[in-house]
Amino acid sequence: MDSRIREHASVVVDHSLDLSEGDNLVIDAHPVSEDLVVALHELAADRGVNPLVVQDRLGERYTRAYLRNREEFETPSHVMALYEEMDAYIAIRGSANVTETSDVDPETNAAYSQAQRPLLDERLSKPWCLTQYPAAANAQLAQMSTEGYENFVWDAVNKDWDAVKEHQSQMVDILDPADEVHIVSGDTTDVRMSVAGNPTLNDYGERNLPGGEVFTAPVADSVEGEVLFDKPLYHQGREITGVSLRFENGQVVSHSAEKNEALLTEVLDTDEGARYLGELGIGMNRDIDRFTYNMLFDEKMGDTVHMAVGRAYEDTVGEENEQNESAVHVDMIVDMSEDSYIEVDGERVQEDGTFIFEE
Amino acid sequence: MDSRIREHASVVVDHSLDLSEGDNLVIDAHPVSEDLVVALHELAADRGVNPLVVQDRLGERYTRAYLRNREEFETPSHVMALYEEMDAYIAIRGSANVTETSDVDPETNAAYSQAQRPLLDERLSKPWCLTQYPAAANAQLAQMSTEGYENFVWDAVNKDWDAVKEHQSQMVDILDPADEVHIVSGDTTDVRMSVAGNPTLNDYGERNLPGGEVFTAPVADSVEGEVLFDKPLYHQGREITGVSLRFENGQVVSHSAEKNEALLTEVLDTDEGARYLGELGIGMNRDIDRFTYNMLFDEKMGDTVHMAVGRAYEDTVGEENEQNESAVHVDMIVDMSEDSYIEVDGERVQEDGTFIFEE
Repeated sequence: MDSRIREHASVVVDHSLDLSEGDNLVIDAHPVSEDLVVALHELAADRGVNPLVVQDRLGERYTRAYLRNREEFETPSHVMALYEEMDAYIAIRGSANVTETSDVDPETNAAYSQAQRPLLDERLSKPWCLTQYPAAANAQLAQMSTEGYENFVWDAVNKDWDAVKEHQSQMVDILDPADEVHIVSGDTTDVRMSVAGNPTLNDYGERNLPGGEVFTAPVADSVEGEVLFDKPLYHQGREITGVSLRFENGQVVSHSAEKNEALLTEVLDTDEGARYLGELGIGMNRDIDRFTYNMLFDEKMGDTVHMAVGRAYEDTVGEENEQNESAVHVDMIVDMSEDSYIEVDGERVQEDGTFIFEE
Repeated sequence: MDSRIREHASVVVDHSLDLSEGDNLVIDAHPVSEDLVVALHELAADRGVNPLVVQDRLGERYTRAYLRNREEFETPSHVMALYEEMDAYIAIRGSANVTETSDVDPETNAAYSQAQRPLLDERLSKPWCLTQYPAAANAQLAQMSTEGYENFVWDAVNKDWDAVKEHQSQMVDILDPADEVHIVSGDTTDVRMSVAGNPTLNDYGERNLPGGEVFTAPVADSVEGEVLFDKPLYHQGREITGVSLRFENGQVVSHSAEKNEALLTEVLDTDEGARYLGELGIGMNRDIDRFTYNMLFDEKMGDTVHMAVGRAYEDTVGEENEQNESAVHVDMIVDMSEDSYIEVDGERVQEDGTFIFEE
């Protein structure tokens, strides 16, 4: 087994989750991730942890077979009982075919997600970690060789996360007490927003592995200006490119996209909150140096910022501000590596991807 | 997908378990059995059943990694909670390597099994089905090509089990009310035993799939004579061949084996019950026409009888008789196809493999 797999497992067990004796663990993984699951078992045994492997959400052929033969769903009480008695949860992305469920009816998918929601809430109420195994199908999605993708994933994951935490805390210290953020890139993006009163969080590889961003929520009605998201995004298995949004009083008042604009319109029309930003994130993981059509990595890419229309994370909304409670949360990315800057309360804190504290 | 896989799934769902709307199902399977698990999901969806796939006992690499790094075990409460809320259980044998756990310390294995015992008891308290997927490693164990083994497995499994039930009931009708059974094969096997008061059960593919035997328990102290078990058996991953046992007042008073006799001695020395028979079974599945080192199939082979030293099944012991409660239950097989007969209360009911009701 590649030694980086055992290293990956050790980051999950000792950094992301900090498992301890007697913990009941559930690992949800597709068989392509078998090596990582084996390595996790070695460590689980050593730490006195009780693991159970399931293929709940990650058994993609099973899910497809089930969803194509059923229209109504209930929340299964045996799966709920399992999650209720569990102390920690690991989901390992890794596919045999990332488009395996592409011929499932979207309404069926929505009904299934609705029935699974209590299970999701139960899982998220425990310490959890979402990570990635560099399977061939995921390499293909990233348009990379499998070996190249392995290097990419393990470089991004197997890091000194304490050093990352410390490095990123410099940006948290700038953004957390701030009022106005001004983001400019070329002549296509020029947007201002307030983050006053909203906490900035430091993502150093706990719930998401890789981590590597600092993020907060914009004050709902404060966003003004235009943004061109020059990195593509995947939504419901379809690519949307060249998204341009214009904000007035926080709301998206006009929008366009080069590809799949109708899908973008559908997203923005979901509900009231879907036309307002719910997240501003700053990608700081420079080991993620390319776009791989996988938001777990893309949004942490160095030299980028991302904004999400829709739902805000509860922890990023201060007591005096209102939380965006939209049903959607769609992240979109702006390249900040060239001809770009971020100003916080009038001070330039990043220019062409370099932070003020890195100079 | 081979149409016989969907047929196999349909036997499990509609015959063996008879699943119905709202049932919570757990499927324990290795990824090599994926096609059968997919087919089970299609049917589960159609029947309104809620499936969860786990790799609890059947994730062989996970089990090995866990057992080689741990010595003491507890019964995990989250797995217990899952099984308690479950309505039905399917275990699908199918391996990537049937000797995957061969370098696990036997004492560790025993300690693990001990801790898992409450989970086993919980599973066995619900409707359950143990079946086989014809994976390449299992074909190798059987010394067959994968395609040849596929034919073998599906011929044995995809049958008209109602017809089997009816056919086998003729043997149940003979054995159930009987007193003495006399089994003779060549000049090496000549044994008499009483089955008086002990019910004979008809195995037509419910808990074991394939099924295909009728079985009961001998009255403990009634067994007299000699038996040469001329088919090999596998115990703890080791083959024992040419087992010969001599019984007096039900007890094994002398024994020998051509290969691994010491292991046989170990079995017989386990406890008091290990020197007495706990089962007499008559294999009646003629689609199982060869020995495959897999007791799920071997004991149902047509033209054979098997006897197990050790534990008796509770349902096969009448109220007036005592149940053999040994910790072991080791099946051993006698070929009855040539120069052999079975007499029940003095009447010859099988000769050279042909039953009286087949003439």
